[in-house]
Amino acid sequence: MTMKAFQDYYADEFASCYGCGRLNKHGLHIKSYWDGEESVCHFQPKPHHTGGYPGYVYGGLIACLIDCHGAGTASATKSRDSGEEMDIHPPPRFVTASLHVDYLAPTPMDTMLELRGRAIDIKGRKVIVAVTLSANDNVCVKGEVVAVQMPDNFF
Amino acid sequence: MTMKAFQDYYADEFASCYGCGRLNKHGLHIKSYWDGEESVCHFQPKPHHTGGYPGYVYGGLIACLIDCHGAGTASATKSRDSGEEMDIHPPPRFVTASLHVDYLAPTPMDTMLELRGRAIDIKGRKVIVAVTLSANDNVCVKGEVVAVQMPDNFF
Repeated sequence: MTMKAFQDYYADEFASCYGCGRLNKHGLHIKSYWDGEESVCHFQPKPHHTGGYPGYVYGGLIACLIDCHGAGTASATKSRDSGEEMDIHPPPRFVTASLHVDYLAPTPMDTMLELRGRAIDIKGRKVIVAVTLSANDNVCVKGEVVAVQMPDNFF
Repeated sequence: MTMKAFQDYYADEFASCYGCGRLNKHGLHIKSYWDGEESVCHFQPKPHHTGGYPGYVYGGLIACLIDCHGAGTASATKSRDSGEEMDIHPPPRFVTASLHVDYLAPTPMDTMLELRGRAIDIKGRKVIVAVTLSANDNVCVKGEVVAVQMPDNFF
């Protein structure tokens, strides 16, 4: 695995995200890394991240994990494919155009969650990332993020 | 609008949800009500709920709002259709089987968000709820929740 998270390469003006921004003091600090051809993210839910029934993770938190891991994977994929080092050129920032999550099984609270991502389609500024979320080596959730590279003149 | 939120009728054992549980001290306390044939939810994002670019709401938070408002709408719809009063019989608890969110436009931070929901398909224990999220009367996000009624013997 790479040592520094994708999200920690984002330019300061894009680093305030509640999900993954290093500059958001109250945020979740979701962090994604390369592990070979796949991106990986580990997250340990806090006790208050429970869903509607005790012992299982809130589905909305899972959507957050998939969102930020998916957008981060799109960003790092674009950097990698263009041959640019993220520590020299900050990776392009992507926004989520759509998010789809299939909850296949309840996700237990008391274990480290592992998300794995892979860009499955790249067309111009649009990258589609497929994500799985596993707990104890069981895939509990599958997701898909359609991420779009922000225009340079967004501000 | 009804005076008590759908989520406040859930039985205690289903009221711990980070998104909408009245018993979760650290949660978002998302609350949904009837407004005629539609369900409505208002939510004021906190300053730390920002997305990857300043001034706009984090997409993962929006997914949380759609998730809990959708599941709550499924629950209240089932109660209403069965002719049961929620204050006498707690509404059946639904879990989210899948969630889809289309982010049509950036959602501004500095205003009250309004979500509106409607059950568009009911088949046995499955209810599909369509949700819109508006800010300043502009629809910024559309979502769909496939919610499934939890079995009585879940525990």
